[in-house]
Amino acid sequence: MTDAAMIAAISIFTAGLTVSFGSLGPALGEGRAAAAALNAIAQQPDSASTLSRTLFVSLAMIESTAIYCFVVAMILLFANPFVDQVVQATQSAAG
Amino acid sequence: MTDAAMIAAISIFTAGLTVSFGSLGPALGEGRAAAAALNAIAQQPDSASTLSRTLFVSLAMIESTAIYCFVVAMILLFANPFVDQVVQATQSAAG
Amino acid sequence: MTDAAMIAAISIFTAGLTVSFGSLGPALGEGRAAAAALNAIAQQPDSASTLSRTLFVSLAMIESTAIYCFVVAMILLFANPFVDQVVQATQSAAG
Amino acid sequence: MTDAAMIAAISIFTAGLTVSFGSLGPALGEGRAAAAALNAIAQQPDSASTLSRTLFVSLAMIESTAIYCFVVAMILLFANPFVDQVVQATQSAAG
Amino acid sequence: MTDAAMIAAISIFTAGLTVSFGSLGPALGEGRAAAAALNAIAQQPDSASTLSRTLFVSLAMIESTAIYCFVVAMILLFANPFVDQVVQATQSAAG
Amino acid sequence: MTDAAMIAAISIFTAGLTVSFGSLGPALGEGRAAAAALNAIAQQPDSASTLSRTLFVSLAMIESTAIYCFVVAMILLFANPFVDQVVQATQSAAG
Amino acid sequence: MTDAAMIAAISIFTAGLTVSFGSLGPALGEGRAAAAALNAIAQQPDSASTLSRTLFVSLAMIESTAIYCFVVAMILLFANPFVDQVVQATQSAAG
Amino acid sequence: MTDAAMIAAISIFTAGLTVSFGSLGPALGEGRAAAAALNAIAQQPDSASTLSRTLFVSLAMIESTAIYCFVVAMILLFANPFVDQVVQATQSAAG
Amino acid sequence: MTDAAMIAAISIFTAGLTVSFGSLGPALGEGRAAAAALNAIAQQPDSASTLSRTLFVSLAMIESTAIYCFVVAMILLFANPFVDQVVQATQSAAG
Amino acid sequence: MTDAAMIAAISIFTAGLTVSFGSLGPALGEGRAAAAALNAIAQQPDSASTLSRTLFVSLAMIESTAIYCFVVAMILLFANPFVDQVVQATQSAAG
Amino acid sequence: MTDAAMIAAISIFTAGLTVSFGSLGPALGEGRAAAAALNAIAQQPDSASTLSRTLFVSLAMIESTAIYCFVVAMILLFANPFVDQVVQATQSAAG
Amino acid sequence: MTDAAMIAAISIFTAGLTVSFGSLGPALGEGRAAAAALNAIAQQPDSASTLSRTLFVSLAMIESTAIYCFVVAMILLFANPFVDQVVQATQSAAG
Amino acid sequence: MTDAAMIAAISIFTAGLTVSFGSLGPALGEGRAAAAALNAIAQQPDSASTLSRTLFVSLAMIESTAIYCFVVAMILLFANPFVDQVVQATQSAAG
Amino acid sequence: MTDAAMIAAISIFTAGLTVSFGSLGPALGEGRAAAAALNAIAQQPDSASTLSRTLFVSLAMIESTAIYCFVVAMILLFANPFVDQVVQATQSAAG
Repeated sequence: MTDAAMIAAISIFTAGLTVSFGSLGPALGEGRAAAAALNAIAQQPDSASTLSRTLFVSLAMIESTAIYCFVVAMILLFANPFVDQVVQATQSAAG
Repeated sequence: MTDAAMIAAISIFTAGLTVSFGSLGPALGEGRAAAAALNAIAQQPDSASTLSRTLFVSLAMIESTAIYCFVVAMILLFANPFVDQVVQATQSAAG
Repeated sequence: MTDAAMIAAISIFTAGLTVSFGSLGPALGEGRAAAAALNAIAQQPDSASTLSRTLFVSLAMIESTAIYCFVVAMILLFANPFVDQVVQATQSAAG
Repeated sequence: MTDAAMIAAISIFTAGLTVSFGSLGPALGEGRAAAAALNAIAQQPDSASTLSRTLFVSLAMIESTAIYCFVVAMILLFANPFVDQVVQATQSAAG
Repeated sequence: MTDAAMIAAISIFTAGLTVSFGSLGPALGEGRAAAAALNAIAQQPDSASTLSRTLFVSLAMIESTAIYCFVVAMILLFANPFVDQVVQATQSAAG
Repeated sequence: MTDAAMIAAISIFTAGLTVSFGSLGPALGEGRAAAAALNAIAQQPDSASTLSRTLFVSLAMIESTAIYCFVVAMILLFANPFVDQVVQATQSAAG
Repeated sequence: MTDAAMIAAISIFTAGLTVSFGSLGPALGEGRAAAAALNAIAQQPDSASTLSRTLFVSLAMIESTAIYCFVVAMILLFANPFVDQVVQATQSAAG
Repeated sequence: MTDAAMIAAISIFTAGLTVSFGSLGPALGEGRAAAAALNAIAQQPDSASTLSRTLFVSLAMIESTAIYCFVVAMILLFANPFVDQVVQATQSAAG
Repeated sequence: MTDAAMIAAISIFTAGLTVSFGSLGPALGEGRAAAAALNAIAQQPDSASTLSRTLFVSLAMIESTAIYCFVVAMILLFANPFVDQVVQATQSAAG
Repeated sequence: MTDAAMIAAISIFTAGLTVSFGSLGPALGEGRAAAAALNAIAQQPDSASTLSRTLFVSLAMIESTAIYCFVVAMILLFANPFVDQVVQATQSAAG
Repeated sequence: MTDAAMIAAISIFTAGLTVSFGSLGPALGEGRAAAAALNAIAQQPDSASTLSRTLFVSLAMIESTAIYCFVVAMILLFANPFVDQVVQATQSAAG
Repeated sequence: MTDAAMIAAISIFTAGLTVSFGSLGPALGEGRAAAAALNAIAQQPDSASTLSRTLFVSLAMIESTAIYCFVVAMILLFANPFVDQVVQATQSAAG
Repeated sequence: MTDAAMIAAISIFTAGLTVSFGSLGPALGEGRAAAAALNAIAQQPDSASTLSRTLFVSLAMIESTAIYCFVVAMILLFANPFVDQVVQATQSAAG
Repeated sequence: MTDAAMIAAISIFTAGLTVSFGSLGPALGEGRAAAAALNAIAQQPDSASTLSRTLFVSLAMIESTAIYCFVVAMILLFANPFVDQVVQATQSAAG
């Protein structure tokens, strides 16, 4: 297998692993936060707006870790800095 | 095995792994959020509309991490950026 | 083993893994949501219709992640984009 | 080992794995839903018919993920699309 | 090892794995459902018949996933579709 | 190692694995059901006969999955359908 | 390593694994049932005889899965059906 | 490595594994049963004798699975039926 | 595979692993903190501002560990100190 | 590596594994029993002697499984029955 | 692969593993501490300042273990003591 | 690698594994017992001396399993019975 | 790979593993202790100073195990006793 | 790799593993004991001195298992009994 194919294979596998494994924690954490928000609104309907605002800030904060993973996966698939590097290295080795 | 076949095999395996593993967290998180919403509505039926709205926003937020995984799997299967690359690399190596 | 057989073997294994692993989360999540709905109806029988509607929306949302897995498995078995590709690559290599 | 035997071995193993692993989640989820239904009926016997209906819809929904796994296993054993393909590929390679 | 022996070995291992792993979920789920039924009958003895009926439907539903596994194991041991196939493939290869 | 020895080794290992792993779920499930029955009898001694009957039906249902495993293990040890097959295949290959 | 030694090694390892792994579930399940019985007797001392009877039936049922494992281990060590078979197969191959 | 040494190595490893792994479940189960007995005696000191008797029967039942493991380990170390067998098989092969 | 390609492959895999695994703990921890905050606000709406401030400080503290992981992943992808080093080492070895 | 060294290596590793893994269950079980005893004495100080006696019997019972492991480890280190056997087998093979 | 490349690869992998795995415990621990603080403030708003101070000291203490990991990762990437050492060793071996 | 070095390597690894893994159970068990003792003293300060005595006996009992592990590790490091044995076996083989 | 490089690689990997794995337990334990302290202060604000003092002693005790890990990692990176040893051994072997 | 380097590598890895894995249990156990002590002091401030004394004895007892691990790690790094042994064995083999 050529070096470029190796890099491609690793990048594909890592991208999938990153985005799938990286969805585990945020999804569970958001589920917990949302469940608490729903219970809280049921308990104190008058504070619904405060609770919603707090929930959305929290969800955004938790979602950010999932976004990191998605961004890294996209970088690996579409803007992988090592692909050109390896191509050049191969060429300079062959040059 | 040729490089293209290797890339194909990795892509197939990663696509399946991504979408199946990536469904674990969101499904559990959504189940938790939905359970909390149902309890909350039973406890405070008057706030059902507020609770439903909060639930749907939360479900959408959690579902988004599953969507990321599905999108990555679809990209790997139908728009894999490395497939053409490797084909070209192979051709240029053979050229 | 020829390349086509390798792709076939990987696709078969991945299809089974995807659909079986992908059923774990949704089944547990739906079980939790359904359990909460049943408790809620028992607690507040008057809101049964609201609760049922909320439950069905939630179940559909959770089931969607299982559907993603089933779709990917079906694509791998019956509409695998890499099978033709590899066949052609093999032919062009042999051509 | 010939390619056809390899495909057969993978298909057998995957079919068993799929149906056995795929029974874990649904069985646990259905157990949870049924337990909740039994508690709910004991708590509110007057709503038994509503609760039963909700339970059966939920069980059907959860069972569907087990059915997906069973269907995939049956396809792998009795209607495997890759078996003919590989046979033909082998023949064309030998032709 | 001949192909037929390989298929036999895989089938034996898969049959055992399928039926043993496939008994984990249903047994736990049935245990949970039965426990809930017993608590419910103790709490509301007047509804014993309704509760028993609901329990038996639930047990049957859960048991079905174990039955799937047992059926697949029996198919693998006594009606394995790949055994004849492989024998023929071997013969045609040797023919 | 001859094919027959290979089949024997796999059968022995699978038989042990099946019966030991297959005892995990039923034992835990039966323990849970029995515990619930004992609590229920203590709480409602007048319904002891109904509770006992329900318990025994449940135990039988749960035990059935352990029986499946034991049956498969016995088949593998004493009525293994592949043993004769492999012997014949070996003979026909040597014939 | 001769075939007979291989069968012996596999049988020894499987016997130990079977009996040790097979003791995990029954021990935990019996512990749970016994704990429930002790709580129940403390709560309702007048029903001690009914509770003891129910406990013993349950323990026997749970213990049965451990017995299965012990029986299989003893068969593997002292009445292994494959040992003679393999010896004969070896002799007929050498014959 | 000679066959006898291989059998010895496997027997040593299996004996240790059996007795150590086999102590996990019984120890946890006995701990649970004992804890329940102590709580029950504290709650109902008048039934201490009944509770003690029930506890001892339960402990004996649970301990039995640990005894199985210890017996198998002792058999493997001091009365291993395969050791002589293999020695004879080796001699007859060399004979 | 050249050294540079090896370094590239390891860096890609590590970057994905770091950011995905590193999102598990923070997401769960933030979910817990947010859930507690929502419950607390519902319980004591008058202290909402104090609670929000405490929540945001805590979220920032927890998020910092996810940031560490993201930073390390970015360093590995875009400012990897070993890439130049290895290139130079290779050149000096070839020089 | 000579056979005797192999047996020695396996014995050392197994002895350590046995005694360390075998301490997990008893330690946890004893901790649970002791915790229950302490709670029970606090709740019913008048029964302290009965509770202590029950606790000590239980601890002895649980400790016994740890003793089994320790005994097996000591046998493996200082009275290993296979060591002489293998030495003799080696000598008779060389004889 | 040259020694320097090997050291680089190990350092990269270890740095990522260290910082990602090392964020799991602190993030969960801080989440727990923050959740307790929020509950405590809601319960006793008058002690908010004491509680905040205690929380910040605790968070700093917990964060310190994450800092250790980050420091080690940075040392491995940017001030690795073995890199120069190995380079010199290689040179002295080549010298 | 010589036999003595092999034995040394195994002994070092096993000693570390034994003492570290063997500290897991006792530490958790002692933590639980100590926690129960502290709660019990807070609940019933008048029985502090009885509770302390019971706690110390329990801690000693639990600690004993950790001591077993430490003793085995020390034996492996400083009084390993196999080291001389192997040296002699090596000498007699070379003799 | 030279011996020195091997020692360096192992040291780097072990240092990272030690400090990251060693942060898991202390972080969780400190989180639990801090959470209990915060609850306790909210419950009994008058004892805040006693509680703080007890908390800090406990945190120091728990932190000490993390410090052990950090110290070992630093020793491995900057004062590794085996590095000189191996260099000397290599020189004496080459000498 | 020379024997001495092998022993060094194993010792380094084992030392790190021992101290890091050995900190898991004690840290969690101490966290639990400290949490219980803090709750107990809040509940019964008058017994603070008795509770503190009991806590410190318990912490010392639990810490002892972590100390065992640290001692073994230090022995492996700085007073390893096998290092000289192996050196001498190597010399006598070369002598």
